[in-house]
Amino acid sequence: MKALVKTKPAKGLEYKEVDVPKIKPDELLIKIHRASICGSDLPVYNYTGWAPHRIPIPFIPGHELCGTVVETGPAAKGFKKGDFIAVESHIFCGLCYQCRNDQRYVCADLKVLGLDTQGGFAEYAAVPARCGWKLDEKFKDIGSILEPLGNAVFATLHDDIAAKTVLITGCGAQGLFAIDIAKACGAAKVIALEASDFRKKMAEQFGADVILDPREENLLQKIIKAGGEKSGVDVVIEMSGNAKAIDMGLKAVKPGGRFTAFGLPGDLLTIDYANDIVFKAVKVQGITGREVFKSWHKTDALLKSGKINPGRVITHVFPMKDFEKAFGAMLAPEKNCGKVVMTP
Amino acid sequence: MKALVKTKPAKGLEYKEVDVPKIKPDELLIKIHRASICGSDLPVYNYTGWAPHRIPIPFIPGHELCGTVVETGPAAKGFKKGDFIAVESHIFCGLCYQCRNDQRYVCADLKVLGLDTQGGFAEYAAVPARCGWKLDEKFKDIGSILEPLGNAVFATLHDDIAAKTVLITGCGAQGLFAIDIAKACGAAKVIALEASDFRKKMAEQFGADVILDPREENLLQKIIKAGGEKSGVDVVIEMSGNAKAIDMGLKAVKPGGRFTAFGLPGDLLTIDYANDIVFKAVKVQGITGREVFKSWHKTDALLKSGKINPGRVITHVFPMKDFEKAFGAMLAPEKNCGKVVMTP
Amino acid sequence: MKALVKTKPAKGLEYKEVDVPKIKPDELLIKIHRASICGSDLPVYNYTGWAPHRIPIPFIPGHELCGTVVETGPAAKGFKKGDFIAVESHIFCGLCYQCRNDQRYVCADLKVLGLDTQGGFAEYAAVPARCGWKLDEKFKDIGSILEPLGNAVFATLHDDIAAKTVLITGCGAQGLFAIDIAKACGAAKVIALEASDFRKKMAEQFGADVILDPREENLLQKIIKAGGEKSGVDVVIEMSGNAKAIDMGLKAVKPGGRFTAFGLPGDLLTIDYANDIVFKAVKVQGITGREVFKSWHKTDALLKSGKINPGRVITHVFPMKDFEKAFGAMLAPEKNCGKVVMTP
Amino acid sequence: MKALVKTKPAKGLEYKEVDVPKIKPDELLIKIHRASICGSDLPVYNYTGWAPHRIPIPFIPGHELCGTVVETGPAAKGFKKGDFIAVESHIFCGLCYQCRNDQRYVCADLKVLGLDTQGGFAEYAAVPARCGWKLDEKFKDIGSILEPLGNAVFATLHDDIAAKTVLITGCGAQGLFAIDIAKACGAAKVIALEASDFRKKMAEQFGADVILDPREENLLQKIIKAGGEKSGVDVVIEMSGNAKAIDMGLKAVKPGGRFTAFGLPGDLLTIDYANDIVFKAVKVQGITGREVFKSWHKTDALLKSGKINPGRVITHVFPMKDFEKAFGAMLAPEKNCGKVVMTP
Repeated sequence: MKALVKTKPAKGLEYKEVDVPKIKPDELLIKIHRASICGSDLPVYNYTGWAPHRIPIPFIPGHELCGTVVETGPAAKGFKKGDFIAVESHIFCGLCYQCRNDQRYVCADLKVLGLDTQGGFAEYAAVPARCGWKLDEKFKDIGSILEPLGNAVFATLHDDIAAKTVLITGCGAQGLFAIDIAKACGAAKVIALEASDFRKKMAEQFGADVILDPREENLLQKIIKAGGEKSGVDVVIEMSGNAKAIDMGLKAVKPGGRFTAFGLPGDLLTIDYANDIVFKAVKVQGITGREVFKSWHKTDALLKSGKINPGRVITHVFPMKDFEKAFGAMLAPEKNCGKVVMTP
Repeated sequence: MKALVKTKPAKGLEYKEVDVPKIKPDELLIKIHRASICGSDLPVYNYTGWAPHRIPIPFIPGHELCGTVVETGPAAKGFKKGDFIAVESHIFCGLCYQCRNDQRYVCADLKVLGLDTQGGFAEYAAVPARCGWKLDEKFKDIGSILEPLGNAVFATLHDDIAAKTVLITGCGAQGLFAIDIAKACGAAKVIALEASDFRKKMAEQFGADVILDPREENLLQKIIKAGGEKSGVDVVIEMSGNAKAIDMGLKAVKPGGRFTAFGLPGDLLTIDYANDIVFKAVKVQGITGREVFKSWHKTDALLKSGKINPGRVITHVFPMKDFEKAFGAMLAPEKNCGKVVMTP
Repeated sequence: MKALVKTKPAKGLEYKEVDVPKIKPDELLIKIHRASICGSDLPVYNYTGWAPHRIPIPFIPGHELCGTVVETGPAAKGFKKGDFIAVESHIFCGLCYQCRNDQRYVCADLKVLGLDTQGGFAEYAAVPARCGWKLDEKFKDIGSILEPLGNAVFATLHDDIAAKTVLITGCGAQGLFAIDIAKACGAAKVIALEASDFRKKMAEQFGADVILDPREENLLQKIIKAGGEKSGVDVVIEMSGNAKAIDMGLKAVKPGGRFTAFGLPGDLLTIDYANDIVFKAVKVQGITGREVFKSWHKTDALLKSGKINPGRVITHVFPMKDFEKAFGAMLAPEKNCGKVVMTP
Repeated sequence: MKALVKTKPAKGLEYKEVDVPKIKPDELLIKIHRASICGSDLPVYNYTGWAPHRIPIPFIPGHELCGTVVETGPAAKGFKKGDFIAVESHIFCGLCYQCRNDQRYVCADLKVLGLDTQGGFAEYAAVPARCGWKLDEKFKDIGSILEPLGNAVFATLHDDIAAKTVLITGCGAQGLFAIDIAKACGAAKVIALEASDFRKKMAEQFGADVILDPREENLLQKIIKAGGEKSGVDVVIEMSGNAKAIDMGLKAVKPGGRFTAFGLPGDLLTIDYANDIVFKAVKVQGITGREVFKSWHKTDALLKSGKINPGRVITHVFPMKDFEKAFGAMLAPEKNCGKVVMTP
């Protein structure tokens, strides 16, 4: 089969012929329909940051995947040949304390498909059956973005959103998904914070009520004013990982409010813990991964009811052989993209 | 002033001249703009059921009210002359265990305005300032229905509704409000159960996805099918008080689901407690009144954001002198009404 | 091996030689150390009620079990020979909506070990590995009662218990466990309702603060008085399934309180739904089974910390060959027993 | 009357004759029985930090108070002369968004008695009736510490504690209270972190299972080991405000765990937000003040049941005229004190 392979300890990938993966007894072999690029694929592509320490050579990345089951291992329950599936990328062990307490997203023995194992930027991929999610074929073209969409469902809906004012910091794919979900689920007002003109326009299309630029004057006052008599917004969903956005979010959330922490800063962070967390009695909830499979079921219900329309976040689709264009779109400093999808 | 007064221990009311009420130090005098008829006003009108035991003669009923503050007692905080307000009808004591634990809706010393005290089917009414809710004048024509709308907000949003399948039994005003709120707050599918053709049509206008008649064959199977692979619906919101609807709701809710009990049956009820509650691990949550003022704040946020449009439930508006037509509309067996409103 | 077998469609069992069960790939073979009798084993023994419709002949009952792993199937993860385990008796499918949403206790395809499958009143039993719970050998003599103890942990701790006044109706094993857990977890006052003198004494030993007899005069007033200024108790944990106890519990719970429904009445039940649930805004939570494995982890933590001492509930231990004495103790009308345990 | 008065803009207080305060219509006049010194009284005493900007001259500090009602204003509901009360020090407005949403602890117009108003280190104090808490006289000698105890009740019980492993960082009065409450409410293991030998001993008396010194080697590993197979402790209750303790707590809490933030660092704080909050999906809950009056009711129930024994935290009692000894005990670097109480 053809696959995108990191063949050398350096920037870049190679689209080349490799063996089709052999599945284990509890795995499925998937013929990939579409695969999308996650922010965490970029260090792998660039071979920077944590990537050299984490991935072997040769290595096939890719964990936002969907496709058709073409082979099932003898112990792979719940699927049959021909099923179309999306993939939960977090390969949870099922045996640790967290897994046995319904917190698989922080499995003590977590392996991420395509980061800790060979992934799916390829014609075929091997996937544990417990990570499969059966999908109606009418959603097949958005199948690969259900995994990141599930992050946003978890981040947005882990606590009340109906009738709330919501600040969403960062309008990349996660921020856009969060806007869509928050609006669909009764948020009274969604304020989006974003610097890229392209993404501001997308935020508008996704229904943000107010769109602010981080470089505006009196930004905090503008956000707080939107929260009305509450001295801040009810909910902040932090999707950027940007240190200034995190600080702004902690200042903008109302006393007694909710701050959802999803974006990942690259460095240590300095915060005003006493004034912005303790004295305001704020709840900061870290979110990673998806609730397996609660987040998937919620995503499914919102999709099927037509409440959300996440396909709009896909701005680019390339054949996998044009992977350099695909990664180029993601890496461009203008951030003129939502999700970038590849087809093998 | 003119007021609707129960002058004799018998059916009916009289529209007559009475003294304007004198307010206590912590009260507001309100010039009534609109007042609407609640189901609980009907026994008062008919002088049946609990009414003869509860109300004195003479008596002015009416507790769904809005109007303009024209006088403020010296200890009445938070309002000034000219403020337009809606009224929380539950006069909570503020001192009992429930009040001091944020459960004012079950205040141990609760008095209901217009049932336990003189009410507001009149040109003026005296209202404790702690029961006032300041309202933007652009909502003045729906001001009197915010009180029942708040019931539905409490009943619908006391637990997760986003991405859920919801059965709403009974499409009187409460059921219609619940449809509106559930849809606005992300319910994946709303199934309405109603016998009246008029109200079925209203349920459709409010956005119910499926409308079923209690007399249909295989009703339970139809509802369960709508719940998909879950063996029932996620949520039942019981708004009718009808014994058969309650039983159907308990059977239709999925294992591990939520059953919200708001409607009031007139009699004791026979249920299959073992199979429908224990073995299914169902949560039955009784709901009465509103969370003061959480429910009001949520209602306000949904209204201002345009997420809900409860004014559509008002099907009749009469001058108060035509009260017999107003009560007639409510009492007609065809149930060709939503909310009936009177103007003094 | 020796096993207790229902060999004929009639009352009674036979202690006889049968084949050791053959395990499936995902199963464990357990050498039974102890097995205890559940109330649901009694219809099987008597061959009454649902039993004739549910169990095949021949049939080995028994689902409260513990023992040592002597063989592991090739797909049985997480255990090795020599491990001492207790057994989760609810064989959940892992694939249905409820299982994938962390509500395995209401698995849509649930099979109960020893009721829907051959059980463990025997020298050996086959158990799915996903139902195993590794246990420190110092708890081996209470290993078989962890399953019912887990019910009580789920029922008592599914919502706040610290600083609450608690009424526990019925002081069989479940009620006694609940007393122990509630007291250990900060309940301010535990009121036990029980008719049997033997069990009243046990309730006292388990630390109930007040013990009342259902036949006392002014029972409701006595319970409500114990709830202080709250007009009832904060929490009712209904462990008896007795219709009068359920009704009393619904009347005794304070407005805004919690009623946990665990006991199973044999018949339909008549309740005052309007006054006791809706107007009081009570939450009725049905509880069945255990949260797999949250309840087990909590049980384990309470056990290891010495906070609870559930072994005291074991009043009788018999060799399995004396099964008639064991069942006799359970069936005696005086109810002079807690848990009855058998050793193969 | 005699009172402790800041008479000059400098360190120290003066015990001198002043007028008895005149109460407003909604206030109570209290004859102080006991008053205790809070950490926030120390900047006032020293006239350092925020104190010079916040307090007028002359000024009477003191907000941990109890005493007997000797006069009631005409609008002061719920109390009568002779009632013994403890005092909620947070004078909430009752009208802001937070107050109307049951979050009075973050009232937008909050005034702290004895910091923003004249306080109660005196023979008499004026207290708003809405801040009074009726207390059984048998608890009168601990009446002044109910206010800080309520903080610890809120911090410890705002989320599940039963069957949890708990790390409490800092064993001043708040930490000691938290140990007492956590143990009383079912915590499986309480690990205390404290540097002062005196307070370590107190932590032991309060029932901490493990007591560690922040200067120990391999501190993190020791804490995590105590959390067992969970890769950390279930709950961290941060009572010190120390930057290193906060960082240690964030590292020691298990993935998916709870971190309660109560202690107040003096400066900005640097944390590993990505690894310690986001990737671990930790919930950080800021806590300030008390839930009025939920925390008081819980405190009361735990006290009356004898579950907790907070009086042990009082290590020093002085007549108010010996205030220099009292403040000296609090300010001594050895931290050889729990709570320091004064009697007028």
